[in-house]
Amino acid sequence: MAVYTAVDDAALEVFLADYDIGELLSAKGIAEGVENSNYLLRTTGGIFILTLYEQRVAVEDLPFFLGLLAHCAAKGFKAPEPVARRDGALLSTLCGRSAAIVTFLDGISTRRPSPTHCAEVGRGLAELHLATVDFPLRRANALGIDAWAPLFAASAEDADGVIPGMRAMVDEELTMLTECWPRTLPDGVIHADLFPDNVFFIGRALSGFIDFYFACNELLAYDIAICLNAWCFEDDGAFNVTKARALTLGYAARRPLSTAEVTALPILARGAALRFCLTRLHDWLRVPKNALVTPKDPAPYFERLRFHQRVRSPAEYGIELQD
Amino acid sequence: MAVYTAVDDAALEVFLADYDIGELLSAKGIAEGVENSNYLLRTTGGIFILTLYEQRVAVEDLPFFLGLLAHCAAKGFKAPEPVARRDGALLSTLCGRSAAIVTFLDGISTRRPSPTHCAEVGRGLAELHLATVDFPLRRANALGIDAWAPLFAASAEDADGVIPGMRAMVDEELTMLTECWPRTLPDGVIHADLFPDNVFFIGRALSGFIDFYFACNELLAYDIAICLNAWCFEDDGAFNVTKARALTLGYAARRPLSTAEVTALPILARGAALRFCLTRLHDWLRVPKNALVTPKDPAPYFERLRFHQRVRSPAEYGIELQD
Repeated sequence: MAVYTAVDDAALEVFLADYDIGELLSAKGIAEGVENSNYLLRTTGGIFILTLYEQRVAVEDLPFFLGLLAHCAAKGFKAPEPVARRDGALLSTLCGRSAAIVTFLDGISTRRPSPTHCAEVGRGLAELHLATVDFPLRRANALGIDAWAPLFAASAEDADGVIPGMRAMVDEELTMLTECWPRTLPDGVIHADLFPDNVFFIGRALSGFIDFYFACNELLAYDIAICLNAWCFEDDGAFNVTKARALTLGYAARRPLSTAEVTALPILARGAALRFCLTRLHDWLRVPKNALVTPKDPAPYFERLRFHQRVRSPAEYGIELQD
Repeated sequence: MAVYTAVDDAALEVFLADYDIGELLSAKGIAEGVENSNYLLRTTGGIFILTLYEQRVAVEDLPFFLGLLAHCAAKGFKAPEPVARRDGALLSTLCGRSAAIVTFLDGISTRRPSPTHCAEVGRGLAELHLATVDFPLRRANALGIDAWAPLFAASAEDADGVIPGMRAMVDEELTMLTECWPRTLPDGVIHADLFPDNVFFIGRALSGFIDFYFACNELLAYDIAICLNAWCFEDDGAFNVTKARALTLGYAARRPLSTAEVTALPILARGAALRFCLTRLHDWLRVPKNALVTPKDPAPYFERLRFHQRVRSPAEYGIELQD
């Protein structure tokens, strides 16, 4: 739930004078994303989203994020498109914060993905990976495998109090992942946070992706592994192989996977489950009093990690090795 | 900051099947109002606001509120217009709550009203009072003069801890108001909560009023008294007579005030200041831990009450008796 910064109508008027988007008709704070303040603007020129970047987004990363969205738009990939100021800048300042305007993307996120939704997400993810092949900027994955051990070190002492047995299991997992991580798979720009909240549909058809603030250069198949975790487990924790098959086949239909990528899926899925388990554990142990945002429970991702540990073949994700 | 109820995309689809507003393109939770959950809907038919009524709005009052908005729309008064379901009902149910759809009203609220804004608000308020003369439903003012003593009784013991000297002063004020309240002035439907948040402008021109959930049958001039409190004091507590003159003259240009109404303004303004001071005191003393909404400080309205106590003539509000 966002809107941390209240924007004064007079300040907004001054800010918008730098843009050529028509006369302002309406500005509503919207509850989207948890990192930034977002306003839906209606002008005589259309509908837009105004984002004020709060402290969790590093200002130095904004050219990468906004450049990536502009690149996607130029390639016809459906995502919010940055609107340049009259002077050409994509980034501006409002209420002492970095701020940008993007076009409004129609669509609704789904809380109960069907296999059809999963197939659409897989297809869209492959298209994102293809559309960004020639994106020139780079951003390291700040939450990639090398970050997991230090991240866990800060919470390890309290881990067993949250989930009994967690500390030893995560320590073992980190050792295994460090040894076996497939660092030579094809890489490129990944979304890295493609949860159902960040995918819009109109009816059953994908209308686009939003919230690229974790996007980075990383193994492309790791993005699929994140989606397997985010889209293919039921509320009761059960893995749904029909959804996983739809997702992986949807992806592979647009960007065929190499044997090495398919073979690596179980270990990548373990890594992805661990990454979300660790960041949630970190936030869970550091909830500020009077927090506006309820932290997410790390336990479901710990259970997903256990599931992936038992997987013996990528066929269990519904994808067969072609050869 | 609202959005208390998270609406599932599947539930929304079922709900919207009862309406003839086109295909759903987008639904965003918006931070508007503190009483209800609000979503901005975009469909192939236009833009709408979906409201889910949370516990602070009494279900039995909804026909009055929605009927009033429909009546205003029929009279050409600018406010959100309820959208009927295919079966004609203005009220429906979603996620176990009463829910309604209204049209989207363009405009932006101002945080720093100018005299021009105040003149527009006065004019609009008079037009609301005229447009609702023949509205057939009635709703008593649950926060009218007869409610103030019982409301204060529940907080009186703690009042001096919030504002030293408050208890004795409010007791005296309640005695005086009960004796002197001008109960025979012209009455009708009032907005009763016309703060700057609830008034939209496009540029300098009024575009309409929103949030009618305190509307009720009451002395019409009491609505002006509320606006004098809500629009005509500066952040430092100083009364701005230029704004008050603009507001009262803007009103009187559309609906001339009787001598009795003008004469009563100082006492009505005391009552209005006390009403907001008392409800804020009540909420201030009962903040739930982990509250999402910061309660408003009663002190500024206590200071406004002191100001009105020193007023000797309606001329101090910028309005002269005509005769």
